[in-house]
Amino acid sequence: MTEHVADPSHPRYNSLLMRHKLEVAASKGMLANSAMIAHGRGEAYDYLLGEQTIPSAFIATKEIAARLLNADNPIISLNGNAIALAGEGFLKIAALLNCPIEINIFYRTPERMNALLSHLNGLNEKLGLNVTILGGKPDAKITGLEGPRSNCHKNGIFDSDVILVPLEDGDRCEALVNMGKDVLVIDLNPLSRSAKMASVTVVDELSRVVSNLLEIIPSSPVISDWDNDECLQSALTRIVETISKPTK
Amino acid sequence: MTEHVADPSHPRYNSLLMRHKLEVAASKGMLANSAMIAHGRGEAYDYLLGEQTIPSAFIATKEIAARLLNADNPIISLNGNAIALAGEGFLKIAALLNCPIEINIFYRTPERMNALLSHLNGLNEKLGLNVTILGGKPDAKITGLEGPRSNCHKNGIFDSDVILVPLEDGDRCEALVNMGKDVLVIDLNPLSRSAKMASVTVVDELSRVVSNLLEIIPSSPVISDWDNDECLQSALTRIVETISKPTK
Repeated sequence: MTEHVADPSHPRYNSLLMRHKLEVAASKGMLANSAMIAHGRGEAYDYLLGEQTIPSAFIATKEIAARLLNADNPIISLNGNAIALAGEGFLKIAALLNCPIEINIFYRTPERMNALLSHLNGLNEKLGLNVTILGGKPDAKITGLEGPRSNCHKNGIFDSDVILVPLEDGDRCEALVNMGKDVLVIDLNPLSRSAKMASVTVVDELSRVVSNLLEIIPSSPVISDWDNDECLQSALTRIVETISKPTK
Repeated sequence: MTEHVADPSHPRYNSLLMRHKLEVAASKGMLANSAMIAHGRGEAYDYLLGEQTIPSAFIATKEIAARLLNADNPIISLNGNAIALAGEGFLKIAALLNCPIEINIFYRTPERMNALLSHLNGLNEKLGLNVTILGGKPDAKITGLEGPRSNCHKNGIFDSDVILVPLEDGDRCEALVNMGKDVLVIDLNPLSRSAKMASVTVVDELSRVVSNLLEIIPSSPVISDWDNDECLQSALTRIVETISKPTK
């Protein structure tokens, strides 16, 4: 059991809460073995970013909100960690955008897929929302990928023009970009292949981005002239600042 | 199951092998819930260090070998991850140094302790070694700590003058330093409290350090005039260099 998770005054409350959510999800069979390790990598980068939304990440969050609002066929593609950490928030975002969610996992097994569908459908009902949740019956392929990880829905990811893919794998991110989609990524590692491949990258912790999106979307932000390299550079500069502080 | 773990030509073979070792250990009940997350954090720092032993880390490894060889009562304190990742290697090091190993875990339960003791005793036998393995019957307390995490052996950690504690928690590292011990740490995060508190910090991946120690110890290195801040700064400089490379 994670320590102190019930005490919001604990300085690491949010971090412990996220770990607790992953442990619960793991016990429900929602996560791949690599999920906790991926989360730990994220924690390290978040620490280097100061565990806060840096200004360039907030601006990137506005940009993804604007692009999702402006899309013809927007979609939110979620994996196990994203559903475990912020499933409720993503359902609320999908409801605001009136767009579907598609569950799209890297290590696909029927058991994991069912656990994720059941969890998300349960939340959908609990929140009184009516978000379309895809992923269970894929009938198309992401071009350029092989095996189960290429599976997707024709009326979901395949036909989308703008896709929000938090925590995406580099290969799949690249394949989605090559399909001509506007690919919006949330990734704490500004050096990752997904971060570099994406049209817009929010270098920030998932649950903070979700809170920010829920705040920003109702204000109807507009699309800007976006320079994603500049956005990534700003995150790298922030990490260098953290590291360059005196060590004692 | 981790992918491709059997193929040493895979560019991420060592990283996948380490993950596989942790998965096996987890299935045997040897690890706390936080073990995989901690490993993920380490992976992120290792990536930033270039996934190799940087020159200052090799020099630090020589320094810890020298201090262990020069000690009156050296000891190696191992937690679940260290045993999972490099249990065999640490037994060989203990045999070379003729020193005991003490299992000392942060989230102590009788089940985890027994799983770790049984694993390490099995390896000891398999390797034909006769290393003393402590941890099962603590009869002393690490001064300044409370609860089960303070437990230690009088003829082990308590009476040691030089202690190798790979992957140590910051609080316990500080307590050991305050007891007047020479504390030798292996930690991939040069900004961690353990890294900063230690007498000597090797900023390197555990299995690489173990290989290096097995190579260095027989050459009987001698103790130097050690500046640990300089050692940490060198790792930070390396991370800044990684980050400062062009992002595309």
